[in-house]
Amino acid sequence: MQKNYQQKTLGILGGGQLGRMIIQSAINYNIDIHILDPDIHAPCQSICQKFVHGKLTDFDTVYAFGKDCDIITIEIENVNTEALEKLASEGKEVYPQPHLIRMIQDKRLQKTFYKEKGIPTADFILTENREEVINNAAFLPAVNKLGREGYDGRGVQILRSQTDLDKSFDAPGLLEKLIDFDKEISVIVAKNKKGDVVAYPSVECSFHPTANLVEFLFAPAEISPEIESKAKKIAVDVIHELDLVGLLAVEMFVTKNGEVLVNEIAPRPHNSGHHSIEANFTSQFEQHLRAVMNMPLGNTELRSPAAMVNLLGEDGYSGEAFVEGLEEAMGQKGVYVHLYGKKLTKPFRKMGHVTLIDENLDNLKKRASEIKSLIKIKA
Amino acid sequence: MQKNYQQKTLGILGGGQLGRMIIQSAINYNIDIHILDPDIHAPCQSICQKFVHGKLTDFDTVYAFGKDCDIITIEIENVNTEALEKLASEGKEVYPQPHLIRMIQDKRLQKTFYKEKGIPTADFILTENREEVINNAAFLPAVNKLGREGYDGRGVQILRSQTDLDKSFDAPGLLEKLIDFDKEISVIVAKNKKGDVVAYPSVECSFHPTANLVEFLFAPAEISPEIESKAKKIAVDVIHELDLVGLLAVEMFVTKNGEVLVNEIAPRPHNSGHHSIEANFTSQFEQHLRAVMNMPLGNTELRSPAAMVNLLGEDGYSGEAFVEGLEEAMGQKGVYVHLYGKKLTKPFRKMGHVTLIDENLDNLKKRASEIKSLIKIKA
Repeated sequence: MQKNYQQKTLGILGGGQLGRMIIQSAINYNIDIHILDPDIHAPCQSICQKFVHGKLTDFDTVYAFGKDCDIITIEIENVNTEALEKLASEGKEVYPQPHLIRMIQDKRLQKTFYKEKGIPTADFILTENREEVINNAAFLPAVNKLGREGYDGRGVQILRSQTDLDKSFDAPGLLEKLIDFDKEISVIVAKNKKGDVVAYPSVECSFHPTANLVEFLFAPAEISPEIESKAKKIAVDVIHELDLVGLLAVEMFVTKNGEVLVNEIAPRPHNSGHHSIEANFTSQFEQHLRAVMNMPLGNTELRSPAAMVNLLGEDGYSGEAFVEGLEEAMGQKGVYVHLYGKKLTKPFRKMGHVTLIDENLDNLKKRASEIKSLIKIKA
Repeated sequence: MQKNYQQKTLGILGGGQLGRMIIQSAINYNIDIHILDPDIHAPCQSICQKFVHGKLTDFDTVYAFGKDCDIITIEIENVNTEALEKLASEGKEVYPQPHLIRMIQDKRLQKTFYKEKGIPTADFILTENREEVINNAAFLPAVNKLGREGYDGRGVQILRSQTDLDKSFDAPGLLEKLIDFDKEISVIVAKNKKGDVVAYPSVECSFHPTANLVEFLFAPAEISPEIESKAKKIAVDVIHELDLVGLLAVEMFVTKNGEVLVNEIAPRPHNSGHHSIEANFTSQFEQHLRAVMNMPLGNTELRSPAAMVNLLGEDGYSGEAFVEGLEEAMGQKGVYVHLYGKKLTKPFRKMGHVTLIDENLDNLKKRASEIKSLIKIKA
């Protein structure tokens, strides 16, 4: 007899908060989850059926981990894709597909892909080192990105003028035209092996001014129906062009003259979809499971407008985390606290998030700011 | 410094589906959960921070388990309350309070309590053995209940006429007037140590004709506002009279002439509150945590009308469980499947449930029946 979902073992490379929220969904389907993570205290460590302590970038570790699973997926892109390719060639189901993870790992390949496929994106120049950035000073103001290893705001910086050039990255990367955008939005799409595709409504992201991390998110995005459908179409085009099986977050800029440009993509649950746990008919975490396990995809509509506030480690505090203001927040209607099980805080570390649901969008904005000032992660 | 919620350890006596859904909520607050259960394959076994294999009714086992926790609660009433009392006397926080668990364990004490406190309930006679039941044949038609050890439909039977008397329980129990009810409803209430009390909207339960288990549940109950407020008031009265800290499900009959009578109570998350995960602002599982950990209580309003379908092991099948019809169900909007991680099925075993949300109550009823015919737990 064919294995039922709950008889299959799903291996996840990475055991952070994204894995943790995938597990919260997987429990509903009796799916056995194996986790590989280099941190012995990873957020998933005590709630999965098997925890393997090891490096995500090591071929032998990833290969041995995957041999034990039926389906393998990721919650972070920085993994050994050669091992995943070998596993796939030996019959394991690996989603997203390893060659796509490898491509997305490298922002240079990502940008080149958009250009080749006619996906709208900001103009860019590939640069091999600092000298090449300096030689392209005429391209400024621009965003200077490292090709690889950038994550959670690292490896990305703005070069406004010549005086910024001496901080440019001295490694393979790119220069991207600085977009004078009106809004940053994100559309999450998913595709299963059968080929079904669904798209979530756009959300609007507001970034922390210095940490380059999402600080607030609002769903739905306040954009015209034309921009909404343009953004959805682009996100669906991207997942089709990639032919990716799994979940894909497509971050986009909406320019002041109504253009929609792809900024970056992530082939996994994403910070811009955390609100979906309470706000949408199907959460992005369950959708990821459905996509990689070839289940029917779930409805993506919003049940209620929502805001999401990232709980970042307070600047100036490092050590054992203590959450201030939790009680006051929990007393409010429609406030959902998610802590990620990280014992230690440090400045700007993602320690949790809060989702707010409220029928009134203006209220949501006001309340999101209040939650932000109320809850502090200190040590 | 005072311990934050996420630094406290919560011990739960019982590691079944109720514990499992409590854990899914507890993950959001970084609460360390220790589980005690006699089944080495209990549904909570692999998702808690510590699993202790042992008997819930054994003094030494429960005492040793509790010594290791800050707060102790239950997900099943059939536990050793003497050990819990000793733990409480030694400064552990034990909620619900052990003397209340002991009282609720015994339906004879429960009924006597309602009578003493003026809580409306069906007339009854306490009986010590079969002979006493037979001597009270004039009280028939009646429900004959065992005082202790009844659970999930066991220990409860209807004696319609004299010919049924020879099956009456030959142990301490009671005879309760058979109520010709119009509806069976349930109101879940919660109280924290501070004394805050909240009540959920009434839900309507429909029982399996032979297994005496909830088969369908609909929220809200289709009752008049007068009955609704009467039912809520009774449930709140019960938790106040008990002075119980924790969650309390109050099952009631609505008679054909509009009386509301308490049937039974359960001092923990209850089958009649499963829909609250998706349908209410705060789920009963999170509410239980909030109550026993003295957090602020959460809003209880419905976000959407809902139905709940229990997935019981199909009659005639025993062995390794296989879920039939899962795909078709998952493809529908607003369908939420919860499987309980039980490897083995047997007739009428609670293997999972499905919650449906839909703005239209008539649709809900139709769809609940369809889900019931669609999903079958076989072996």
